[in-house]
Amino acid sequence: MIPPQNRHTPVSGSLEPGHTNSGHEPSAEGALIARRIAELAAVSARPDALERVHLSMEHSAVNACVGTWFAEAGLEVRIDAAGNLCGRIEGREPGLPALLLGSHLDTVPDAGRYDGMLGVLLALAAIHRLAQQARSLPFALELVALSDEEGTRFGTALSGSRALAGTFDPAWWDIPDSDGVTYREAALAFGLDPARIGEAARAPHELVGYLEAHIEQGPELLDQDCPLGVVSSIGAATRSRITLTGRAGHAGGTPWPRRRDALVTASEVILAIESIARDAGALATVGTIQVLPGGVNVIPGIAEFSLDLRAESTELRAATFERILDATREICERRRVTFECTETYRADAVTCAPALRAAVETGIARATAAPVPAPIWSRAGHDGLAIAGITDVAMLFVRCGNEGISHHPDESVLGADIEVALDALTAAIRAFAEGFRSS
Amino acid sequence: MIPPQNRHTPVSGSLEPGHTNSGHEPSAEGALIARRIAELAAVSARPDALERVHLSMEHSAVNACVGTWFAEAGLEVRIDAAGNLCGRIEGREPGLPALLLGSHLDTVPDAGRYDGMLGVLLALAAIHRLAQQARSLPFALELVALSDEEGTRFGTALSGSRALAGTFDPAWWDIPDSDGVTYREAALAFGLDPARIGEAARAPHELVGYLEAHIEQGPELLDQDCPLGVVSSIGAATRSRITLTGRAGHAGGTPWPRRRDALVTASEVILAIESIARDAGALATVGTIQVLPGGVNVIPGIAEFSLDLRAESTELRAATFERILDATREICERRRVTFECTETYRADAVTCAPALRAAVETGIARATAAPVPAPIWSRAGHDGLAIAGITDVAMLFVRCGNEGISHHPDESVLGADIEVALDALTAAIRAFAEGFRSS
Repeated sequence: MIPPQNRHTPVSGSLEPGHTNSGHEPSAEGALIARRIAELAAVSARPDALERVHLSMEHSAVNACVGTWFAEAGLEVRIDAAGNLCGRIEGREPGLPALLLGSHLDTVPDAGRYDGMLGVLLALAAIHRLAQQARSLPFALELVALSDEEGTRFGTALSGSRALAGTFDPAWWDIPDSDGVTYREAALAFGLDPARIGEAARAPHELVGYLEAHIEQGPELLDQDCPLGVVSSIGAATRSRITLTGRAGHAGGTPWPRRRDALVTASEVILAIESIARDAGALATVGTIQVLPGGVNVIPGIAEFSLDLRAESTELRAATFERILDATREICERRRVTFECTETYRADAVTCAPALRAAVETGIARATAAPVPAPIWSRAGHDGLAIAGITDVAMLFVRCGNEGISHHPDESVLGADIEVALDALTAAIRAFAEGFRSS
Repeated sequence: MIPPQNRHTPVSGSLEPGHTNSGHEPSAEGALIARRIAELAAVSARPDALERVHLSMEHSAVNACVGTWFAEAGLEVRIDAAGNLCGRIEGREPGLPALLLGSHLDTVPDAGRYDGMLGVLLALAAIHRLAQQARSLPFALELVALSDEEGTRFGTALSGSRALAGTFDPAWWDIPDSDGVTYREAALAFGLDPARIGEAARAPHELVGYLEAHIEQGPELLDQDCPLGVVSSIGAATRSRITLTGRAGHAGGTPWPRRRDALVTASEVILAIESIARDAGALATVGTIQVLPGGVNVIPGIAEFSLDLRAESTELRAATFERILDATREICERRRVTFECTETYRADAVTCAPALRAAVETGIARATAAPVPAPIWSRAGHDGLAIAGITDVAMLFVRCGNEGISHHPDESVLGADIEVALDALTAAIRAFAEGFRSS
């Protein structure tokens, strides 16, 4: 626990990006996590930025380094058939089902240093704290540092956790990276045997739940002045490609009534998307757009854009998407433009399991001695989406600095928040054990 | 003159693109123009499409070929210092100021076969008709096949006519084409001496006016069921680059109130542009747009788009542009996005000279024996914009088929319209001579 006045010191713009400025004296544990965050941030494919992708040399290096830390904390260590780094410490008797803790060690290009890594280090520190008492726990503790949450290299987000959940897609083996190296070739070079990917899969009876701490990647906790939050669901998300086809024409020679301008139509659709999603409490983003033929003096005949749509529940996402399609249909008919919509990605929402989520709330309450803020739905995807296929999942969010910026070198977390997160995660594991015994 | 029932036979979709389907029996003159149109369409840098750019081998080839036709019509022929093909036939005494007729021989990429070429061939046929009577005209007749109206190769639209008007910009010499060949190097390879570009310039006292026949490049005449039209002005046009700067952010991690989405803002601006320009009777086109960073799951921080704005008068264009800027400012302020607007091209409107325009109207009336349609402002730029700097200009428009499509292989003109256009152009020259004598 930390005094309230230290809980939220805004990060100054003059700091080196990514560094924390907590204004507090770190504990030994806090200082160790800070050193390890910096150490991991240095294991990068680029000298000027953090980029560490699946099955790379850097992946191998962090597995070796973090594996040493796992062992020092008393864990039995192995690397599974998907490149996930795994550790285990037995509970009150050997061979009990495990509470799985963890997060991921891979990054996006030009990444921040907290996304994924912080969750692994917090879980490791919590297990280190609990190691002496592990023999009294009604479950084993396992820790996994997942190998491919971001999907940066092959476009295969969650492939590490999908392997763990037994839902690895064999079609992924043939996907090439930007250098033409396939997932299969990269796995072989990493020392893995693609034929044995099934061995990474865990059976439901081996686990009692999955609990992940992660930076929020948004400003909700910052705005509420709370260091920690509990996650209600990992939201539903789809990505689509929408193509509008009108007719190209000479910018001078085509009077208004004859125009079938794909870009003006797309503009109206983009504003409708904003209005509908905002009204529904969903999030929608059009992040890319291209027009053809693309001449300064030519009316666009084709406009193609992406739609990223997220909502707290699968139902809300689907209903919002239907409203967007209806509006698009009406706009396109009125403007004599045709449209096609292709879904390119889908993740249904995962609701956090009540017992595990209650344990997180108890952990936050015990660590902060303050009211627990309302649950937050995760606007970002997480490995829990895959792991929910085999066991209950829950998440603890840690406040992001810098307006919630993530996937960016300016990603930041206060040192004080890291310490209180460690307290809360440890307390949540204890609370879950208490509930587990009594259930 | 042609019977009214032959004036407008719609072009069938089953025709080979670019060919005319007039349903009439061509005259010998009409057949000759049709053969020459086909002959010129074959002089192309590409086997599958028409592309003939400034100072290319194809430019050289058509100058040689058309120069022969000029000579056969009794013209003295020369190529000026800008690569324009020039011919002259004296009036009632040698050395009189000339009525300049003409159009251009260069094309856009994947061009139609009438844009420019038809005007040159009509003027040549009219001079051929008048050759016997030229000795009675109060002016000489000159014919120019201009070299660089489209600006396809160096981005220097109207550089042939700018040289003729004495306003060639020496900075153009250093502009490279897409292969890195500069305008200067291309001119030297063509056999021109850049140091002598000034010799292409004509003095105002050498000319009594410039009269150009051209396809309309729009559907106004088609919609009015008229083969010919007189041009009121060559409209004002500007091109601008508008850059909106908001802030990039994670599609999941950025709640609505924190978004400063450059693309949603651009969408609202594009709809405002449409509404304002349409309301003003101007034409506005956003033909290109790019967003950055351009990730499916990243809010666009920057959106950059082009604006092509055209209006009948310089004043109307300027007033419309101001209204667009005001709306953009309001939208950007409301959405906390900044904007910059850079003008990349400007052509003020050129009003056609009353006497020369009246002669065109008389010519149309005599050729069609039908009411002359209301004047049309040219939504496209033409060499007259440059030549107006040294003499009066006027234009005769010929109806385009295929909904007015131009800058496209589907560009088409009825054979019957070509014949009536030749009648009208010849009659216009005679009418101008009559008015010239009496003035």
